[in-house]
Amino acid sequence: MTDSPLHPFDAAIELESKTPLGERGDGAATELSTGRTTPAYNNMVGPFGGVTAATLLGSVLRHPDRLGDPVSLTVNFAGPVAEGAFEIATRPVRTNRATQHWSVELSQDGAVATTATAVFGTRRPTWSSTEITMPEVPPAEAIAPLDFPDFIAWAQKYEMRFAQGAIPGIDAGEHSDSTTTLWVRDRPARALDYSSLTALCDVFYPRVFLRRGKAVPAGTVSMTTYFHTDAQALTAQADNAVLGTARAQRFGNGYFDQSAEVWGSNGELLATTHQLVYFKD
Amino acid sequence: MTDSPLHPFDAAIELESKTPLGERGDGAATELSTGRTTPAYNNMVGPFGGVTAATLLGSVLRHPDRLGDPVSLTVNFAGPVAEGAFEIATRPVRTNRATQHWSVELSQDGAVATTATAVFGTRRPTWSSTEITMPEVPPAEAIAPLDFPDFIAWAQKYEMRFAQGAIPGIDAGEHSDSTTTLWVRDRPARALDYSSLTALCDVFYPRVFLRRGKAVPAGTVSMTTYFHTDAQALTAQADNAVLGTARAQRFGNGYFDQSAEVWGSNGELLATTHQLVYFKD
Repeated sequence: MTDSPLHPFDAAIELESKTPLGERGDGAATELSTGRTTPAYNNMVGPFGGVTAATLLGSVLRHPDRLGDPVSLTVNFAGPVAEGAFEIATRPVRTNRATQHWSVELSQDGAVATTATAVFGTRRPTWSSTEITMPEVPPAEAIAPLDFPDFIAWAQKYEMRFAQGAIPGIDAGEHSDSTTTLWVRDRPARALDYSSLTALCDVFYPRVFLRRGKAVPAGTVSMTTYFHTDAQALTAQADNAVLGTARAQRFGNGYFDQSAEVWGSNGELLATTHQLVYFKD
Repeated sequence: MTDSPLHPFDAAIELESKTPLGERGDGAATELSTGRTTPAYNNMVGPFGGVTAATLLGSVLRHPDRLGDPVSLTVNFAGPVAEGAFEIATRPVRTNRATQHWSVELSQDGAVATTATAVFGTRRPTWSSTEITMPEVPPAEAIAPLDFPDFIAWAQKYEMRFAQGAIPGIDAGEHSDSTTTLWVRDRPARALDYSSLTALCDVFYPRVFLRRGKAVPAGTVSMTTYFHTDAQALTAQADNAVLGTARAQRFGNGYFDQSAEVWGSNGELLATTHQLVYFKD
């Protein structure tokens, strides 16, 4: 038996505990941990936001007081994360019988760079219905993966097969529809879990690029993910590609919003996710 | 000249400053304020979530260090808000040149009941496009306002004219589509601002009622609003009804998600808003 080496994604989101800050009045303990950015998941400036989001979620997943699984996550990208070490403070704000609310802050040199709130909960079977339908696209194997430019390191860590709305080329020109639909999975392949699903929710390049037919300065300001999957569905998904589809609703005054869905390879809706994105144009 | 009496909505979200908690290491001051729930906006248990959300946003709007206008707001309903007094702690987490990040907590007797994060920013003209279209419905005046049962106090404070998906009657039965579209404004009429727009984003009754054709226990767990409007568009809207349209994407394991849009009477998209809702069925 040999130890399998750590997947680069797991290395990127790894955290180390510091001494707990102490007990709060209500008995809930803020946990302090440290991590560091990894070059493999760098964006143009600083780390890929999806990995930052997964790291913040991961700080809750590893917290000794954690109850149940992720239900909702909002991450606010308050300022740039510099390459190197960071500290995360993870606080259980309120624990109910079936839900738990969390507040998380990532800081560097005492300045907050990213905040998050998360709702965790225990799931139980209820009436169920998926009202939206999965886009009809060719199977993943029928679409060639797209090679991204080398200087976008994080994109090398995902196998992306675009069915619709691939990154516009040099002479693309304007496009009337901001929809992108792609099969995507970690590269190398890795079994899906809540952490990697969180990062995948941020895998869509800025919708304004597609509409304008060119790259412009843009960055996510706030991102919310609703998790519809449970542990069983994640296990069934294994390391197969998920289908992500994203579109914008309104662009203007320096911001646009994006709504997206992530579907399992078997047609199950795993997550719905929304962003507000800053842009300059 | 006579003083006009305070609109019940303004009375409901009114806050009073306590002494500021003091300066943080980064120079940003947490502001403490107090408020109280008002019977006029009560829900079945505790206050209408939309008014709680507006109250938290309002604590930022009135903060002396506030920069610009609301861009994004996430409110987590961590536990019930009891009728009576509450305290709000409002902290500027990070201030950049054009954006500012906030963290807000509402508590009662030392227990956190609601948390929020908000992004504020200064808006500047950019390329703009609204990619989705306003639902085609009859004008507000052509639809009679619906009377809600008296025991839902907050619903009396809104004039709601349903174009599609009104609250199901006793014998409604199941419905295949969770969409509700309605003209809505404050009752009595009140000029729209960021606070009332925030509350209006929570005006949709739970989508599961419509699908199931009956009321079941349900409550919003987390709610995110992206503001697309600016002060000028709010002024143009004045006290006319806005058009809200909401639908769910997936129901299952005790939760469903809702996505909604709020359109101005002139066809401008004012806000997009999303919720995760707990239900029992």
